[in-house]
Amino acid sequence: MASRRFLSSLFLLLLNLASTSLSEPLIRLYSKPPFSGSRKVLKDDGLYCESWRLAVETNNAGSWAQIPQRCEQLVAAYMKGDRYASDSEIIANYSSEFAKTVEIAGDGSDAWVFDIDETLLSNLPYYEAHGFGSEAFNENSFDEWVDLAEAPALPASLSLYKELQQLGFTIFLLTGRSEHQRNVTEKNLLYAGYSDWERLILRDATDQGKPAIVYKSERRSELESQGYTIHGSSGDQWSDLLGFAIAKRSFKIPNPMYYIS
Amino acid sequence: MASRRFLSSLFLLLLNLASTSLSEPLIRLYSKPPFSGSRKVLKDDGLYCESWRLAVETNNAGSWAQIPQRCEQLVAAYMKGDRYASDSEIIANYSSEFAKTVEIAGDGSDAWVFDIDETLLSNLPYYEAHGFGSEAFNENSFDEWVDLAEAPALPASLSLYKELQQLGFTIFLLTGRSEHQRNVTEKNLLYAGYSDWERLILRDATDQGKPAIVYKSERRSELESQGYTIHGSSGDQWSDLLGFAIAKRSFKIPNPMYYIS
Repeated sequence: MASRRFLSSLFLLLLNLASTSLSEPLIRLYSKPPFSGSRKVLKDDGLYCESWRLAVETNNAGSWAQIPQRCEQLVAAYMKGDRYASDSEIIANYSSEFAKTVEIAGDGSDAWVFDIDETLLSNLPYYEAHGFGSEAFNENSFDEWVDLAEAPALPASLSLYKELQQLGFTIFLLTGRSEHQRNVTEKNLLYAGYSDWERLILRDATDQGKPAIVYKSERRSELESQGYTIHGSSGDQWSDLLGFAIAKRSFKIPNPMYYIS
Repeated sequence: MASRRFLSSLFLLLLNLASTSLSEPLIRLYSKPPFSGSRKVLKDDGLYCESWRLAVETNNAGSWAQIPQRCEQLVAAYMKGDRYASDSEIIANYSSEFAKTVEIAGDGSDAWVFDIDETLLSNLPYYEAHGFGSEAFNENSFDEWVDLAEAPALPASLSLYKELQQLGFTIFLLTGRSEHQRNVTEKNLLYAGYSDWERLILRDATDQGKPAIVYKSERRSELESQGYTIHGSSGDQWSDLLGFAIAKRSFKIPNPMYYIS
């Protein structure tokens, strides 16, 4: 009896399996989920730091003060290698593709807003000499670098800038730098190959101490109330792009070296 | 005379260099900008596809229909390898860190909104059998997979989900799936280990045809008007996170396989 019950159970089981695979043929196509569930990320600096960098670029990391010590080498390699240049280039391509879809009114009202540091100009020579963001920010030392007015252009941004001008966009430069740095900033921009911007907007006395996201939103809002349509905005900080009076399309240029709220 | 003029010029030049390096000692610290200016990215698939993926995750790419053919292998390797798991884990860590800073009122009004597909549940087994997003989306075929109710959990999201419940958050699930998929969706969520959500919100008849970003914003807005405070929101699409009635902090989970506007 026992063996007959076993055989009949086996038969039913096989029948069940057969009918399942007939009615739901998809099942066999799907392999097991690939998650290892390992905690590799805790031990593997390369893995951790790539994920940390993605978290920073997507704003998932929120506010942060300094790059994690274990990521110093990765950030250096990233900034000096092909990846930073490639990432910037692809973003400039997407910016350009979008810009070409904009119907330019021809009255100068179609605007594009650029941030300056790590967007139009690269302070990489400075940060290379200061641990790529792993050292605490030293304002005096950075201001000395700014006064040199020798920051090179980000090549992808320079190409985009010129293309936007040819397309007929009115270019606004909106920077967290202060009014007293106007001359050296203009000098540096010209040195790096930029020219013919409509207006260079710097923090004046009333803007001191405001979070960048507030100051920049207020200034974009002023542009809108003056009749400009802000189609695109390019910046390396989320505080360049979010807030209010935001552009129709925003382009986040990579910067794993520092965060400005 | 010529040689004395030469020597005196040389002397002035050296003096000038010396004084420059004294008054501007920074100059010597900075090396040349590291940009190669090469167009390597055009030829190198690995470089291009990593930059493409970053552009997608940061929303720089905007709307896109299918993954670039040259990136099919990279996307497969990414999704099946350690990187996707690691990226998701780091984001869950940042979500958890933020959640712990929220003061929970204790009246159930503190809410967290989760998307479902590629956020709580992984459809990777399906996409693995369909070119990781390189094939055109086939709704019938995907709905058959959904009906199986066998999508596994994203491990990082499952841990976060349980932690948020323990912290006292009220959990809302807001999905682009339709009302007719309610039963299989609940079945799948329970199968994957999720339970005790406050409400599962699916598209009803009036939501059909609306862009996800509108439908999801409207539903979040309803939650707010019902007295909930949406502290956090987790989703793999920017249309899960942007629009109006947005959460205080949004967490973008990676998804290089498809885009929903």
